[in-house]
Amino acid sequence: MGTIDTGVEVRPVVPVAVVGATGYAGVELVRLLIRHPEVQLAMATSDSYAGKRMSDVYPHLSGIADLELASFDAERVAEAAQIAFLALPAGFSSIMAPQLRERGVKVIDLGGDFRIPGSLYREWYKKDPPPERWQEEAVYGLTEWNRDRVAGAAFVSNPGCYPTAALLGLLPAVCAGGVDPGGLILDAKSGVTGAGRGMNPGNHFAEVAENFKAYKVASHQHTPEIEHHLETIGGRRALVSFTAHLVPMGRGILVTAYGQLADRWRGMSTEEVLEVYRETYRDAPFVRVRAAGQWPQTKEVRGTNLCDIGLTVESRTGRLIVVSVIDNLVKGAAGQAVQNFNVMMGWPENAGLERVPLYP
Amino acid sequence: MGTIDTGVEVRPVVPVAVVGATGYAGVELVRLLIRHPEVQLAMATSDSYAGKRMSDVYPHLSGIADLELASFDAERVAEAAQIAFLALPAGFSSIMAPQLRERGVKVIDLGGDFRIPGSLYREWYKKDPPPERWQEEAVYGLTEWNRDRVAGAAFVSNPGCYPTAALLGLLPAVCAGGVDPGGLILDAKSGVTGAGRGMNPGNHFAEVAENFKAYKVASHQHTPEIEHHLETIGGRRALVSFTAHLVPMGRGILVTAYGQLADRWRGMSTEEVLEVYRETYRDAPFVRVRAAGQWPQTKEVRGTNLCDIGLTVESRTGRLIVVSVIDNLVKGAAGQAVQNFNVMMGWPENAGLERVPLYP
Amino acid sequence: MGTIDTGVEVRPVVPVAVVGATGYAGVELVRLLIRHPEVQLAMATSDSYAGKRMSDVYPHLSGIADLELASFDAERVAEAAQIAFLALPAGFSSIMAPQLRERGVKVIDLGGDFRIPGSLYREWYKKDPPPERWQEEAVYGLTEWNRDRVAGAAFVSNPGCYPTAALLGLLPAVCAGGVDPGGLILDAKSGVTGAGRGMNPGNHFAEVAENFKAYKVASHQHTPEIEHHLETIGGRRALVSFTAHLVPMGRGILVTAYGQLADRWRGMSTEEVLEVYRETYRDAPFVRVRAAGQWPQTKEVRGTNLCDIGLTVESRTGRLIVVSVIDNLVKGAAGQAVQNFNVMMGWPENAGLERVPLYP
Amino acid sequence: MGTIDTGVEVRPVVPVAVVGATGYAGVELVRLLIRHPEVQLAMATSDSYAGKRMSDVYPHLSGIADLELASFDAERVAEAAQIAFLALPAGFSSIMAPQLRERGVKVIDLGGDFRIPGSLYREWYKKDPPPERWQEEAVYGLTEWNRDRVAGAAFVSNPGCYPTAALLGLLPAVCAGGVDPGGLILDAKSGVTGAGRGMNPGNHFAEVAENFKAYKVASHQHTPEIEHHLETIGGRRALVSFTAHLVPMGRGILVTAYGQLADRWRGMSTEEVLEVYRETYRDAPFVRVRAAGQWPQTKEVRGTNLCDIGLTVESRTGRLIVVSVIDNLVKGAAGQAVQNFNVMMGWPENAGLERVPLYP
Repeated sequence: MGTIDTGVEVRPVVPVAVVGATGYAGVELVRLLIRHPEVQLAMATSDSYAGKRMSDVYPHLSGIADLELASFDAERVAEAAQIAFLALPAGFSSIMAPQLRERGVKVIDLGGDFRIPGSLYREWYKKDPPPERWQEEAVYGLTEWNRDRVAGAAFVSNPGCYPTAALLGLLPAVCAGGVDPGGLILDAKSGVTGAGRGMNPGNHFAEVAENFKAYKVASHQHTPEIEHHLETIGGRRALVSFTAHLVPMGRGILVTAYGQLADRWRGMSTEEVLEVYRETYRDAPFVRVRAAGQWPQTKEVRGTNLCDIGLTVESRTGRLIVVSVIDNLVKGAAGQAVQNFNVMMGWPENAGLERVPLYP
Repeated sequence: MGTIDTGVEVRPVVPVAVVGATGYAGVELVRLLIRHPEVQLAMATSDSYAGKRMSDVYPHLSGIADLELASFDAERVAEAAQIAFLALPAGFSSIMAPQLRERGVKVIDLGGDFRIPGSLYREWYKKDPPPERWQEEAVYGLTEWNRDRVAGAAFVSNPGCYPTAALLGLLPAVCAGGVDPGGLILDAKSGVTGAGRGMNPGNHFAEVAENFKAYKVASHQHTPEIEHHLETIGGRRALVSFTAHLVPMGRGILVTAYGQLADRWRGMSTEEVLEVYRETYRDAPFVRVRAAGQWPQTKEVRGTNLCDIGLTVESRTGRLIVVSVIDNLVKGAAGQAVQNFNVMMGWPENAGLERVPLYP
Repeated sequence: MGTIDTGVEVRPVVPVAVVGATGYAGVELVRLLIRHPEVQLAMATSDSYAGKRMSDVYPHLSGIADLELASFDAERVAEAAQIAFLALPAGFSSIMAPQLRERGVKVIDLGGDFRIPGSLYREWYKKDPPPERWQEEAVYGLTEWNRDRVAGAAFVSNPGCYPTAALLGLLPAVCAGGVDPGGLILDAKSGVTGAGRGMNPGNHFAEVAENFKAYKVASHQHTPEIEHHLETIGGRRALVSFTAHLVPMGRGILVTAYGQLADRWRGMSTEEVLEVYRETYRDAPFVRVRAAGQWPQTKEVRGTNLCDIGLTVESRTGRLIVVSVIDNLVKGAAGQAVQNFNVMMGWPENAGLERVPLYP
Repeated sequence: MGTIDTGVEVRPVVPVAVVGATGYAGVELVRLLIRHPEVQLAMATSDSYAGKRMSDVYPHLSGIADLELASFDAERVAEAAQIAFLALPAGFSSIMAPQLRERGVKVIDLGGDFRIPGSLYREWYKKDPPPERWQEEAVYGLTEWNRDRVAGAAFVSNPGCYPTAALLGLLPAVCAGGVDPGGLILDAKSGVTGAGRGMNPGNHFAEVAENFKAYKVASHQHTPEIEHHLETIGGRRALVSFTAHLVPMGRGILVTAYGQLADRWRGMSTEEVLEVYRETYRDAPFVRVRAAGQWPQTKEVRGTNLCDIGLTVESRTGRLIVVSVIDNLVKGAAGQAVQNFNVMMGWPENAGLERVPLYP
């Protein structure tokens, strides 16, 4: 595929590295970064496929991303790139991110190691947390709610997929004091890429298709991430029941959130609550608040960094019901990482991210 | 397909009619009744396809169910059949069921007209309810909880698909006083056959596949059915938030139910609650209670009349979380109808229903 | 799940073993045999899961097939069962089947080891063929075309899934001399269970869904099986181009076959050719020949032992086009094995196999 | 979604209209044109939804394409746009395209009316063909093979989806005299968007999912289009057996083509034939020829204008087997239309079309 010569003078591009480029989040980073106008994909690492070309492992990238995959080596990443995106299984970033930071490389970590305090990490992940020094440096990259801190950061911890959808859906209500964060129920549903590319019968087409199930009920490691950031951002103690379900589709997350209306919002109409949401996200290029009676669908954001939100006040029960959807690989992983990157660099927040959903 | 001559003397069979045989519930009734050892499928009606053979409309039934479809005529149904299964859109049974009952035909109605009191029906269905006389005769056919009344009934109102899964999952806890039915949250997910065979873009493969959405949030007509029968069976006032979601699969319902533990059950372990459930369903041939930590999947009951239930006590929040799954076309429609039929006739409850799930 | 007491005197049942019970063909054998009226499932083996119960590995079988899985031991199989169904990867039956036969156990082998002469096996499977003595004993179990030999057999080699659909679709034309078997093109499509339960990215839901591909083009090991049995049954030299494709579904095979009409059939109408097919399969309980202009769909035979066939004479090109469909796990594996078993035992051919397709 | 201010001076954009914007090809045109750097989407028409906004009908376009849909009126299209893309059911372009052309509007027609001579159109489409004058003006827009004529055209007839995949896969061999076009077999498979958004049970999720079928066997209207352009471009009489199949996926076409090697190519290796293909498509930015032994998958081109091709010489049978894949809505419809538009305007052929496949 050639390049359009627009006759415009060439700007310097920023060299970046993707560490863990052959998992699903990694290959999605490649998809986004390879077309980012300000970026050069200078390095991609994969310990499983080192020595092969990216397009050998993923033939859909033939002619698009043919660079050779390298083993991870902090020194060589530092030579090649100004910033590294880490897309690794839990536990790896705790080791690799410090190695990169010590060499001056900026880091956006898509894994779970730096999202919650060490004590919570140890409890829910059953692993040793990363060194405290780096934990403190890492800024939680829920862009819409942490934009200012991300802007000045050298190390961003990118939110988990479920927490992104859950927090974007609930924070306007929680921060306005409209809903009590102490009694939330989050019923979450995800496509199968959320579980990564690892092979087990639970990912086999024959066992996922024409099937639906709950998993990790009352024990999912995203629970403390949601509670912790409801508290750090919303300012009040949060307690949530969180249930994950597997949908027979590749991409997409939908979270249905149920919260008891606080006194302040009792008697408010759906339209009034929607107005609060619209106001909250007025300057957020990726959040779309739906009209009353319209409910977002995962396919309506597929392949994009969008988060769509619908809600209703259920007066019979005094509850607010919020439905939020994202593409778990984009806004829930690689896309939000690029969004944070844009903010860190002072570029337009949507640079390289202006895709139209692939529908149908 | 021939018949196995087992050398056993032939018993008289009961002639039955399926009214509305070409919708998805109707064709599922045909699948089950055509192999029922005590039954002869004497008549099948379809106003859309009258004059065609069942196997013209559904070629998979060639050589299995080739009978000609008739228009509905109460008199002719009464001549041909002792019992009629009605599988019709809302509003039709209100008219047809009385016509059949007046002619002495037993009725099992799979529609929604007779499941809730007329005032609720009018409010949620926006239609005139059926005559009170017949409403009173109709027994709510949640077999496991109403077996004795079904046994003596001439007119059974078969439960809705979502209510079947929801009630089987919650009634053991509600009836034991373990959970407060006044604050329940039911997050329900269904395959697309739940919406029937009617065509609109919402059923188009290209818009359902690789997609997930909520629908009829806070307004689904199964809400009052669940509340009403939690009350009539459980004996206490119920109030539920019910949300329906569409899963990109053909068959299957999964309901995730969240209830606050009442004082009586506070401190109980998951295992102790499971024991209550096991005890409750000890004699129910179609309910399987899973071991702690195991969660049922819709595919594990596909094509069968089974309802599988898993649960956990979430001590952090003081909640009971129950997951129940059924095949919406079988236990949620045609299968439960046959189960009720068996009970009405005094046959073994599982006659003609002993299928093994089609997995994978 | 209880049992219906029909008050009929109990007949002696035949004890059988399934060797390799946890692969997809194995679990399908369990589904069929557990409800077979003449059979007792006496043993199920699985080297991967020995010591677990069948329902631990496949929870959908809870209460239906809870027997403990054993390691394979020819002696113990011989003690427990009169007949063993082998559902194993290529190469294993070559060793295990002789061990069982030497102990007097009848064998139905669902693998590929005994379907073709040793020289072809070596060439296409790249493995050593089984001992000649047992090769000679094994009868190719394409029931409709080898019923008499199967009836007297102690060792049946069950056909492959693609060959079953291909041969049933083509043999009526080839045997009648209507089509030249020297220039056939077989374009075949299969659901993903055809590749077994083994995990690799090629089976991952995210990479199978919303995707379609060809595989093993011009090199699939079912090619010589089709050619060989076109010759042994059809009596003339066959040469076929065979291409396999992967369909994003769990079950089902459809083969589109293209053959040049021989002089004998030139000028024949579609209806006349259909009449030959109908006549050929007049006494075959599982083959359904469709009317002109109707084309079979894989879903129309799902879960059953049926093979549906449609065809047309394309006069523009002088070709016969035949489309045949089966459920690859039933008629293409476990179901045909049970059918052969029925024939070996002198039972009705459809004993335990009278299922209605699960549609939709 | 905002716009990135790149500080580059603004170029004048070309106003375009999409006629029939709410069918699947129409909404795909909107997806591509709304992000095209040289284009302004000035008008979108839909007789079904006139007066609504595009994003009312397709909420995924909220904030992206909110323009109001108009009824078709040739005069108003002529006022608003320099070029109109027609995405209409068969028969409509015959009337509308002339109205637009007479008013000086350039036309790219995505329908079937102008692709084949009137006599063939009448025979296969069972409709009156368009006026001869306009037929003669319309250039067949198989860009890779007609680039020069497209460059000077005011009226382009965009190829059908199946013909695009079939012709790109076969023309290099046919034009080189390597394969005889008189005996081709094209076994084609398509996702369900190929059938449009019209609703009938054949598009219902429950009947498409977990299913595979052939349709319009030996009678598909794309047959004469393939034959005709094999002849006009390849220069020799063509005769093909063409079979269409429906794959349970939304997007994607795969064509498996079988051709007898002509004397000239007898004995050639797969690698040598691949070299001819690579040479043929050396300057085609959207065609990727795979290495020997690698087979393209539909998902590897999803959402893009790419066509991937794999092939093998089957020496046993003397045949060439070619597999080609496209996204039917992009290269098979809207994308190729934009590609032709780029060529007509003298822009880079891939302007606005440099997407990375959405994988997985």
